[in-house]
Amino acid sequence: MILTITMNPSVDISYSLDKLVINDVNRVSNTRKTAGGKGLNVTRGINFSNIPVLATGIIGGTTGKFIQEQLDEDNIAYNFYVTQKESRNCIAILHQGNQTEILEAGPRLDNDDVEQFLQHYKKLLNHVKIITISGSLPLGFPVNFYVNLIELASEYQIPVLLDSSGQMLLTTLKSQYKPYLIKPNQEELKQIIQMDIDVNDSHSLIKALKHDSLDDIPLIVISLGKNGAFARCFNHYYQVSIPKINVVNPVGSGDITLAGLAVSLHENESIEVMLKRAMTMGMLNAMEAQTGFVNMNNYHEYYQQVEIKEII
Amino acid sequence: MILTITMNPSVDISYSLDKLVINDVNRVSNTRKTAGGKGLNVTRGINFSNIPVLATGIIGGTTGKFIQEQLDEDNIAYNFYVTQKESRNCIAILHQGNQTEILEAGPRLDNDDVEQFLQHYKKLLNHVKIITISGSLPLGFPVNFYVNLIELASEYQIPVLLDSSGQMLLTTLKSQYKPYLIKPNQEELKQIIQMDIDVNDSHSLIKALKHDSLDDIPLIVISLGKNGAFARCFNHYYQVSIPKINVVNPVGSGDITLAGLAVSLHENESIEVMLKRAMTMGMLNAMEAQTGFVNMNNYHEYYQQVEIKEII
Repeated sequence: MILTITMNPSVDISYSLDKLVINDVNRVSNTRKTAGGKGLNVTRGINFSNIPVLATGIIGGTTGKFIQEQLDEDNIAYNFYVTQKESRNCIAILHQGNQTEILEAGPRLDNDDVEQFLQHYKKLLNHVKIITISGSLPLGFPVNFYVNLIELASEYQIPVLLDSSGQMLLTTLKSQYKPYLIKPNQEELKQIIQMDIDVNDSHSLIKALKHDSLDDIPLIVISLGKNGAFARCFNHYYQVSIPKINVVNPVGSGDITLAGLAVSLHENESIEVMLKRAMTMGMLNAMEAQTGFVNMNNYHEYYQQVEIKEII
Repeated sequence: MILTITMNPSVDISYSLDKLVINDVNRVSNTRKTAGGKGLNVTRGINFSNIPVLATGIIGGTTGKFIQEQLDEDNIAYNFYVTQKESRNCIAILHQGNQTEILEAGPRLDNDDVEQFLQHYKKLLNHVKIITISGSLPLGFPVNFYVNLIELASEYQIPVLLDSSGQMLLTTLKSQYKPYLIKPNQEELKQIIQMDIDVNDSHSLIKALKHDSLDDIPLIVISLGKNGAFARCFNHYYQVSIPKINVVNPVGSGDITLAGLAVSLHENESIEVMLKRAMTMGMLNAMEAQTGFVNMNNYHEYYQQVEIKEII
């Protein structure tokens, strides 16, 4: 089973307006509300692949209840730690070709929540083969919290796939408990290694991936958008090319890519199959309007068009 | 007891941003979520006056549950008809001195909800002395729905105070079941009588209030903002003047004015006391940042400054 972790989920509200009128009342009848948070997208991606998955993290209040109801509707298994404090909303206003977002910080939690969640998490680890961690921490949580999760997972020899950024990622990379896989984009990689990278030059990418701070991370997948990806798998380097696709909504594609990586590791697939699966899942998501959705009927068509080249 | 009716309540979310950046991500830590809807403000106003009050209407889903929790916190009694469909959110973005609002239409309900609510409403009428109806109807409800509510109230001789607008108000005024009181603003009055009014001229106002469509409405209070109000109480006309006040947040002042009118009728006060109480409550609300809040400690100070002059 794969355990996915979403520490600060949300109810995402999307409003479609012809025009957003500032300093006035905008009436909207086209409203969508969904359970959001990067880790929940990962969960959906794994679920589409028919691999057993359990979502955990922290939810609270009536917003948390809505998240549970939405996951029930999608037949997604979950076991959250439940607090008294309301989970957050994230608003996306779609208007005149724009997407204006308002992201709530979410509830401020305390040390008691930290401790209670760790106890909750430990109980879930018995039947878990892979863990994914995605997104940011709730207010009030220590920046090294993901290190704690990885340390506990290491006691059970469970590899952790970490998709985070900023201080949470940097702190984890400096700790003695390393994730098994990270999936930084170009900006995040620059922040980690503190130097410029030419993403069109494989030698520049290899040099970056040889940086000390990335030692002891077995798998690193750098997402390059329409240019595919570049990966270091143990000591081998791979350029991954993808076909040109009709991008409808790229939101969540990185999360679905992570879902593909987790599924592949869960199924003990080869490096080549893993990278092809992950890129195919990401593309399938980008071709759909709905965030976190993939049409698996198109899987084989696009899978065959992903090319992997080892760089020696 | 006063029964307040809010057919389409909401969870109001207020975001305070230094700047709203269009087509980008705006992160916000200053979020307020409250139970909203004009009728719930009326309920709060009555509650501040220590008169027994019960809120009803239709709520649903986790948003409806949040509304109940908020009313519990404010010690407000309620007995809603509960549907499966989620109640709505209304968003107010406060930015650079602007207030940009996004108002959801709310759930579309069906004939079964109409029937079920009417049954629910009938059961509540036994111990009710006054009813207030505020705001708009849910999608799917017939435009003459408030006529049904007034008709059922008339079987118990319960007067109904109606604060609505548009077709819902016009349809009610054309029906044989009239409200006991309406509280139109200048625009709504113009829409009702289909002619221009000079609100600075009492004769113009009297002429408007003698319009056929307003026959059989015992009490009509026209709110004139900082200029107070003009009222027809049976066949007497009153100019109501208020002192200059420091307006902090006028949202909800009309609702709190209606609360004052309902309280006064409940307590069988004189016309003069009724108008003074109502205007005082509205002013107290406008002087507070929090919508639907009044500081009753200031009541007597402002009550004494309201002047009522009968126009012969």
